[in-house]
Amino acid sequence: MSEIRIVQNVLKHNDEIAAMNRQRLRDAGVFWIDLIGSPGCGKTSLLETTLRRLHGRIQIGIIAGDLATDRDAKRIQACGAKVVQINTGKGCHLDANQVRHALDEIDLTGLDLLIIENVGNLICPVGFDLGQDAKVGMFSVCQGDDKAAKHPHLVRAADLLILNKTDLLQHVRFHPVTFRDDVEKLNPDVAIMELSVTESRVDPWLDWLISKTAKAQAQTGNGSPEPTPLIQGGI
Amino acid sequence: MSEIRIVQNVLKHNDEIAAMNRQRLRDAGVFWIDLIGSPGCGKTSLLETTLRRLHGRIQIGIIAGDLATDRDAKRIQACGAKVVQINTGKGCHLDANQVRHALDEIDLTGLDLLIIENVGNLICPVGFDLGQDAKVGMFSVCQGDDKAAKHPHLVRAADLLILNKTDLLQHVRFHPVTFRDDVEKLNPDVAIMELSVTESRVDPWLDWLISKTAKAQAQTGNGSPEPTPLIQGGI
Repeated sequence: MSEIRIVQNVLKHNDEIAAMNRQRLRDAGVFWIDLIGSPGCGKTSLLETTLRRLHGRIQIGIIAGDLATDRDAKRIQACGAKVVQINTGKGCHLDANQVRHALDEIDLTGLDLLIIENVGNLICPVGFDLGQDAKVGMFSVCQGDDKAAKHPHLVRAADLLILNKTDLLQHVRFHPVTFRDDVEKLNPDVAIMELSVTESRVDPWLDWLISKTAKAQAQTGNGSPEPTPLIQGGI
Repeated sequence: MSEIRIVQNVLKHNDEIAAMNRQRLRDAGVFWIDLIGSPGCGKTSLLETTLRRLHGRIQIGIIAGDLATDRDAKRIQACGAKVVQINTGKGCHLDANQVRHALDEIDLTGLDLLIIENVGNLICPVGFDLGQDAKVGMFSVCQGDDKAAKHPHLVRAADLLILNKTDLLQHVRFHPVTFRDDVEKLNPDVAIMELSVTESRVDPWLDWLISKTAKAQAQTGNGSPEPTPLIQGGI
């Protein structure tokens, strides 16, 4: 059997399990996200802020992927969320089967939103469908304004892009216009949310989550189709 | 043939070519490095500063890996260096065969130092020997102080670690002691160089390159075994 054939089989097997995951979460009326970003762009900090700000309003579960340590799980748990940590060892991405097993450890009853914090990597996670409703790509201004152009597959696959650490714009070389132009060429339809998690400037993101979660619940008849946004004019 | 067997064959084939690369550069008296870091930690900026500061002193060649664009190659070329850009498409790392072909495009005669700027990724490049004399792992303080613990394979494999963007320490949450303690547990022998490429505080790195290059040349009888350091007390 050729190497190409093996890779095709792995992806086919992954897609089959992803479809099962997709149905499982759809039946439960849970909106879920695959959050992809490189190490240190602020994924875990975004989750901490999200959990604090939406506490009592939306029930959120988290699956956190990392090569090693349970540091992310501990940080998230401290915010009162249900969290499952997957340690991949040398694995550079999460796959649908890992997520399926993690889902077994989460009680989906009463859950509104599930966020998968993928392994910190802008490349490999893009190729593996987990069954999620939306892929969210995350960058930070500290990484430089050329990172969208250098990661076209993520930008094209993303349903939403986050540009974090905008509070550091004055200290780093980053031209937002360059970044936006590159994104526009690759995926004209995708929205870019400029956030500063450190300064808790994340309202458009929270509104997006509230809106998407309500829509998912409306489809299964579990919730209200008309959520109240945190701010006006959210995406 | 099982998937595991296929992976073993790929790595064995890679290692055979890496050994050829290693011999080729050794014969030419060139010291060479595999520089591994995540997107935006400052790899290309470090190369620009290195090329400017060592201009006229050491002949440097660069092989730059990226999924897409030739932006890095253009930046490096503007500094007057010989550069070959490898675009990997969806490939998450460079392998020995890609480097072998890139070497065909570089005249090794008169070259002292070759730096491979690997694809921005802290995981996959670690598993592929290119034939290099040294693996250098690069982090930035913007990524948070937990990144060494989360990437144990890179830290263990590294001959040198760079911690960049120390000029931003006052603006981000990063405890150098935490980072250093994690590294110490994983690889007690590896040195950590704290640099600020933006502020051109890179002298220990330049001294290390000068010293290593001179030693490689001394082994083939091409150069002086006693280089003059830029600063005293370099690693």
